[in-house]
Amino acid sequence: MSTQRICLFPGTFDPITLGHVDIIERSLDLFDKFIIGIGHNAKKTPLFSPEDRLQWISDLFKDNPKVETILYEGLTIDCCKKVGANFILRGIRYVSDFEYEKSIADMNKSIEPSIETFFLTCSPEFSSVASTLIRDVYVNGGDVRKYLPEPVIKSLYPFEGSLK
Amino acid sequence: MSTQRICLFPGTFDPITLGHVDIIERSLDLFDKFIIGIGHNAKKTPLFSPEDRLQWISDLFKDNPKVETILYEGLTIDCCKKVGANFILRGIRYVSDFEYEKSIADMNKSIEPSIETFFLTCSPEFSSVASTLIRDVYVNGGDVRKYLPEPVIKSLYPFEGSLK
Amino acid sequence: MSTQRICLFPGTFDPITLGHVDIIERSLDLFDKFIIGIGHNAKKTPLFSPEDRLQWISDLFKDNPKVETILYEGLTIDCCKKVGANFILRGIRYVSDFEYEKSIADMNKSIEPSIETFFLTCSPEFSSVASTLIRDVYVNGGDVRKYLPEPVIKSLYPFEGSLK
Amino acid sequence: MSTQRICLFPGTFDPITLGHVDIIERSLDLFDKFIIGIGHNAKKTPLFSPEDRLQWISDLFKDNPKVETILYEGLTIDCCKKVGANFILRGIRYVSDFEYEKSIADMNKSIEPSIETFFLTCSPEFSSVASTLIRDVYVNGGDVRKYLPEPVIKSLYPFEGSLK
Amino acid sequence: MSTQRICLFPGTFDPITLGHVDIIERSLDLFDKFIIGIGHNAKKTPLFSPEDRLQWISDLFKDNPKVETILYEGLTIDCCKKVGANFILRGIRYVSDFEYEKSIADMNKSIEPSIETFFLTCSPEFSSVASTLIRDVYVNGGDVRKYLPEPVIKSLYPFEGSLK
Amino acid sequence: MSTQRICLFPGTFDPITLGHVDIIERSLDLFDKFIIGIGHNAKKTPLFSPEDRLQWISDLFKDNPKVETILYEGLTIDCCKKVGANFILRGIRYVSDFEYEKSIADMNKSIEPSIETFFLTCSPEFSSVASTLIRDVYVNGGDVRKYLPEPVIKSLYPFEGSLK
Repeated sequence: MSTQRICLFPGTFDPITLGHVDIIERSLDLFDKFIIGIGHNAKKTPLFSPEDRLQWISDLFKDNPKVETILYEGLTIDCCKKVGANFILRGIRYVSDFEYEKSIADMNKSIEPSIETFFLTCSPEFSSVASTLIRDVYVNGGDVRKYLPEPVIKSLYPFEGSLK
Repeated sequence: MSTQRICLFPGTFDPITLGHVDIIERSLDLFDKFIIGIGHNAKKTPLFSPEDRLQWISDLFKDNPKVETILYEGLTIDCCKKVGANFILRGIRYVSDFEYEKSIADMNKSIEPSIETFFLTCSPEFSSVASTLIRDVYVNGGDVRKYLPEPVIKSLYPFEGSLK
Repeated sequence: MSTQRICLFPGTFDPITLGHVDIIERSLDLFDKFIIGIGHNAKKTPLFSPEDRLQWISDLFKDNPKVETILYEGLTIDCCKKVGANFILRGIRYVSDFEYEKSIADMNKSIEPSIETFFLTCSPEFSSVASTLIRDVYVNGGDVRKYLPEPVIKSLYPFEGSLK
Repeated sequence: MSTQRICLFPGTFDPITLGHVDIIERSLDLFDKFIIGIGHNAKKTPLFSPEDRLQWISDLFKDNPKVETILYEGLTIDCCKKVGANFILRGIRYVSDFEYEKSIADMNKSIEPSIETFFLTCSPEFSSVASTLIRDVYVNGGDVRKYLPEPVIKSLYPFEGSLK
Repeated sequence: MSTQRICLFPGTFDPITLGHVDIIERSLDLFDKFIIGIGHNAKKTPLFSPEDRLQWISDLFKDNPKVETILYEGLTIDCCKKVGANFILRGIRYVSDFEYEKSIADMNKSIEPSIETFFLTCSPEFSSVASTLIRDVYVNGGDVRKYLPEPVIKSLYPFEGSLK
Repeated sequence: MSTQRICLFPGTFDPITLGHVDIIERSLDLFDKFIIGIGHNAKKTPLFSPEDRLQWISDLFKDNPKVETILYEGLTIDCCKKVGANFILRGIRYVSDFEYEKSIADMNKSIEPSIETFFLTCSPEFSSVASTLIRDVYVNGGDVRKYLPEPVIKSLYPFEGSLK
């Protein structure tokens, strides 16, 4: 019997976007368990609270028993060990992200050789859907519902409702 | 019961290098079956014959029942369908390869939505081990044994033998 | 009275794709006249004949009096002078294309300072629609109708017809 | 009669450099009206005050009736709507800027489909003239007059005067 | 008699890593004197004090009369003039660093034409050894001794000691 | 007494441009001997004969006893050993060249650890002066004298003469 394939998909998810959802859904079949890890970094102040971010993602995947959502602090590799993940998954949008992602993957591999990092590229329609840009538009009063999954829309646009 | 995870790892392997071997070994645990597909392109003339390339890789993984090595012509996505692969794996060495790889992955996904392409980055020590450069050194009489797996060394350097 | 803004949009268009069409349609408003220049390079053998490529594009824009389609040989900058274009337009898909495009734009500017090159980036949904990949799939018997405009579909798929 | 081509050229201009001036002058012919928008971001502290930056650019183009200079806060796309711009122009210096610029252009296009973003690449002699580097040299007492237009020189170097 | 070749190797060295040491050792033969300049930037707060950083590097090269280690503030080009360096050396790890490094080199050359900047690329095994990542792992309690030279290990891991 | 610093500057020089000349002149002070190696590759057909290329460069540096120009075939690293070079110099123009150059440098270092490759970036005014583009313009009857050194102008434009 082979070992379970347990994946950690780490990120800030400030907020989770349809781009993230696309990466997650395209990867689920590859793993036996899929843990979405919301990183909490003492030095960065996210726009949305960890509680909101956790709630949104938990709601989104509440019907999929394979998916679990957690908050974590500290090194991603330590989070992997704690939850038993033997794989890390990262979505890559920008070419310019690629090298930095590779450096982190290399260092993680060097610290803990039993954990491998795999990459998936964003679907073309989501390649410009970055949380940074979305936050910027949202904070300035723009409508970003078309980039967001239902639970986030419900929370951020309680009166407008979903797009259709 | 979940479906089998069958991976196609396509390439020219002209010749297979320790960089390829590293990518393959780090990915084996993620899949139930791992098919190494040696692409045959009527327009490109490889340095080594398809038969040699097939023999070298088959020898290398002959003790691993999970690995199968095949020759294929035409589209990679058609090869996937023929062998039943639901995943494609690609190793990325250069940032400049990244975009082209993404385009091919996007087009493959658009032609056959059920097949996903995952990426792994080369280990640092193999990041400059390119088949192109190895062929160039080999053809000019240089010693490239340190970049090659045993079966290729035995075949290309019958008198010198392996490095240790 | 200001001078006319005449744009040359040079390319190989082997074949013209929906990605090209997107770039053209988004730029038409900026110019008074829009000339699509199909480059003919003695050293490169395109898959489709210059006549076919000219016919497809002419058909596509036959109802737009602002658009003209021509074949040209030699330097793009010489073509500009011949047709009176004071602007060159280029669509950029890959980051890795960017520097080469900039070099050509710089050299053209240095040869003929009165002609400026402007760039437009591909729409996300067309960012992986490259003529090279399309030709490869087409030649191997795949269906690429979803990337092509009507006149090309009619010509390449006379029996299947358009997608809807 | 065709609609007016009104361009917004947004930036921080902290300070405006000869590189910016080059981009502006090479683009003027393409548009009927050219609005230089000095972005004001509550979170970033520029070295020079919005008033100085506005004054310098207004002085520089005071003889060109086509050019207007404004300060704006919030989203660039909202500024476009307010001033009636149907085009955004961006100069690209670094390859690494390209993807981020493309993401912003894509999101702007998605929020407001009637506004297109065009790009111009820096002239070779200005490709390393970045406001960031200029500020750094200036703050450390270095002479950066060779990168600056007259009104900025007069203001920052009241005693030394212009370079010739 | 030719002039002395005096090299400034500027950096933050927060802390110095085996990647830095590799660049330094591979460059020593090219220069008559090699000055390691630890930049001090009022706006950035390093993790380790300037005194520690200076001590570590001085210890490391104490037996090499060609190497000198200094702290400096302000522009690198001004530091060059003060210490008489006619060459600047920079190691490049990321492709994405390359353009920024080129801009700085161009501006330095433009301010002081007699000083040239040369580049060396990291050895493959050190290409992912970035001070940023090392600090992150160290601060979170991870073991980063394999990326650090002896004097830094002794200071940061007084009880664990060196790796072998 | 220290060993001589002998540099090999390899290239195709088809033809040598002012961009190459700029790299060479900025590097001469760093080395005791500077060998310009014109690579001859059986598989590539240059536009200009090896004899012409050798003659042009020899003429250009005939008054500098430090510079020697040679033709070579085979591996650059073998040429280094033959002429006693302990350093290789490469100019980098494009970011996209950077990774390939690094791979070659890494492989050369791995084959012959005593030889180091250093890089210099092109001066901004020459960053778009590529031999490929120059050949293309020349072959199509354009005037490329502004990118070429005197000996090449005299040979290619015997009647027009130099630019001033």
